[in-house]
Amino acid sequence: MSRDIEALDSNDPLAALRTEFLLPANTIYLDGNSLGPMPRAAAERARTTVEQQWAMDLIASWNSHGWIDLPVTAGEKIAPLIGAGPGQLICCDSISVNLFKLLAVALQLRPGRHVILSQQDNFPTDLYMGQGLSRLLGQARCELRVVEESALQSALTDEVAVLLLSQVNFRDGSVHDMASLTAHAHEQGALVIWDLAHSAGVLPLAVDDWQVDFALGCGYKFLNGGPGAPAFVYANKRHHGQFQQPLQGWMGHQAPFDFSPEYHAASGMASFLTGTPPILSLAVLDEALNLFAGISMQQIREKSLALSDLFIELLQEYPALESLQLRSPRQESRRGSQLAFAHPEAYAICQALIAEAVIADFRSPDLLRFGFSPLVLRYRDIEESVKVLDRIMASEMFLAAQFQKRQKVT
Amino acid sequence: MSRDIEALDSNDPLAALRTEFLLPANTIYLDGNSLGPMPRAAAERARTTVEQQWAMDLIASWNSHGWIDLPVTAGEKIAPLIGAGPGQLICCDSISVNLFKLLAVALQLRPGRHVILSQQDNFPTDLYMGQGLSRLLGQARCELRVVEESALQSALTDEVAVLLLSQVNFRDGSVHDMASLTAHAHEQGALVIWDLAHSAGVLPLAVDDWQVDFALGCGYKFLNGGPGAPAFVYANKRHHGQFQQPLQGWMGHQAPFDFSPEYHAASGMASFLTGTPPILSLAVLDEALNLFAGISMQQIREKSLALSDLFIELLQEYPALESLQLRSPRQESRRGSQLAFAHPEAYAICQALIAEAVIADFRSPDLLRFGFSPLVLRYRDIEESVKVLDRIMASEMFLAAQFQKRQKVT
Repeated sequence: MSRDIEALDSNDPLAALRTEFLLPANTIYLDGNSLGPMPRAAAERARTTVEQQWAMDLIASWNSHGWIDLPVTAGEKIAPLIGAGPGQLICCDSISVNLFKLLAVALQLRPGRHVILSQQDNFPTDLYMGQGLSRLLGQARCELRVVEESALQSALTDEVAVLLLSQVNFRDGSVHDMASLTAHAHEQGALVIWDLAHSAGVLPLAVDDWQVDFALGCGYKFLNGGPGAPAFVYANKRHHGQFQQPLQGWMGHQAPFDFSPEYHAASGMASFLTGTPPILSLAVLDEALNLFAGISMQQIREKSLALSDLFIELLQEYPALESLQLRSPRQESRRGSQLAFAHPEAYAICQALIAEAVIADFRSPDLLRFGFSPLVLRYRDIEESVKVLDRIMASEMFLAAQFQKRQKVT
Repeated sequence: MSRDIEALDSNDPLAALRTEFLLPANTIYLDGNSLGPMPRAAAERARTTVEQQWAMDLIASWNSHGWIDLPVTAGEKIAPLIGAGPGQLICCDSISVNLFKLLAVALQLRPGRHVILSQQDNFPTDLYMGQGLSRLLGQARCELRVVEESALQSALTDEVAVLLLSQVNFRDGSVHDMASLTAHAHEQGALVIWDLAHSAGVLPLAVDDWQVDFALGCGYKFLNGGPGAPAFVYANKRHHGQFQQPLQGWMGHQAPFDFSPEYHAASGMASFLTGTPPILSLAVLDEALNLFAGISMQQIREKSLALSDLFIELLQEYPALESLQLRSPRQESRRGSQLAFAHPEAYAICQALIAEAVIADFRSPDLLRFGFSPLVLRYRDIEESVKVLDRIMASEMFLAAQFQKRQKVT
């Protein structure tokens, strides 16, 4: 089957965005699901923030350069990407820390219910934070109950205060139906917290329309905010004023510069702030988010699926790649912007790919993951990476090593 | 009284350090206690981290550029500054978030005791975090008890699990006797948590010798780590392995890249890590800390006191400055590296100083604060700032405004 890869690239409405990023030459980066690449403007913003704002204007920058507003400024840029109206997003801390706040809030909003329901294969830090809160409060007040995906709906009993799930599974990229799970949780009287770490910036979302209660995500994957960029928190307006999150620091006070000894939470999202935010990291995230202005999430989603579909289709044309078993759903609507393949030699293949400047990643025990960042990847990058993969797996050395292993086993 | 200010500067053993910083021309910065100035190397490190490491090496930088080790690398550079041996410091999150961890740990280590004892005039966020934990756990398990400074010792009853204090008061710069308060708390069976926000990098400390249990501080004041730089946590080795902090995220797992669903805390300080740290902010802090290599804290302390003593002495030579009431202790051993003066027009004076490029700050309702960063300030900066202060307060406009106000009152 012959494809006009060149035509795909020249007809790509997002093609021009690639020039907004600084990318290493001759490298195909398929790991934007782990750390997004660097927007050129972000580098410029880092320089300005450090060398002009911090160095020259010092403490005055909190006001004159809007540092104090950055959590809100950046949050409001993420809002349209996940379908949130204004006043419901803020950037601060890490996903883990923010999840602790949200879990405590959810328990507070559902007195008489004590269970956090989640899924065995959720991203581990989500489960760990639930375990930590449970240990702190005691099992009677907070129990983390973890079930298989298939048992989620039946596990939504009247003990469940909150359903905590990641929309996109970090291993295989499979996607939950957020709208229907949210509706189902609400029918059972539970709230929902959605972890959008692998969703924000790459999947069209409608958190307001779906009446999602709470959500969070990180800034450094598909939002390209830089390593360890601050996370975001979404809290639906209908809950505002009904709760008080426990990590109450001075930045979340209604009048932080009064330095009064009693805490009075700011209204709205500002109450999620805790300590002084890491301004350099936050400013760079804020800048990176500007790249999404004027692009629709639908366009991004279309390209993301086209890239991953092309990857799957091209794989089938190479006999040496037959042994890669797709672990992500084949159905487009059921997967995010990454593909996972199982292979007994996944680790070795991943190392060989990296050595050939195709950056994928490995997840224990046997998964090879490829992430597709629609803002930077070209269709010809997909074609090229499959060719490299074939060169590796069809090589005499690779086949000989495989053969030797099989002989040892039998 | 005539002084040879020039000689003071030319004999200053720390004078050369000023050239390591980029400072705005014709500005005297007396606010390093709030945000430290920018080390030139920090700017270079920010560029390298963003434009080379992130942009060019992408995800590989976690290992190849030591991002994953930065919390420990930076922490170990702070350790000698506070008198801590290795393996007891780590950099992560904000002071507020870290305090939450430490408060929960202290309660865990003192079962049967439920009181956090602190001081009314502690930095507010410290009190807020205690209030937040108390609200979450209930008063029976956690009560924040706040007393006047003079009542601290008598309030150390057998209900007190932990004494939480800031060594240097953020308003008036007065200093607690850490060694004796720590010893006294221990005699009463309580632990101590010291907030070293205004101490680290400017006061000689001996946390190990004083058998301090826990401490924390921020990276952006006298450590010059940049706006919102991550905070540090100290936990004395004798407590390691005895506790588990509640904000347990994946970075604090003993094997984070196994992604196992059960949390098993890393040994030692790594268990204080929560989510992915903000690498840009952390790398800049790590670089800024290199400036302390080879300088003794005693040298820094001597210059800090010499600068502030000079400021106090020079003030007394100007009649117009008589109305500034020193609110910091006159006794050297009882104050940190800042001075506070009360004046009914403190806000107006502060604004006038800033307009003349002498950067001080104002704390409600009537305090004018001056911070002394011994790594950058010259004795002639002190002389000049007092002259500017005199020019403002002796001006006809200022006196006329004062006179008018008095007439209105009487």
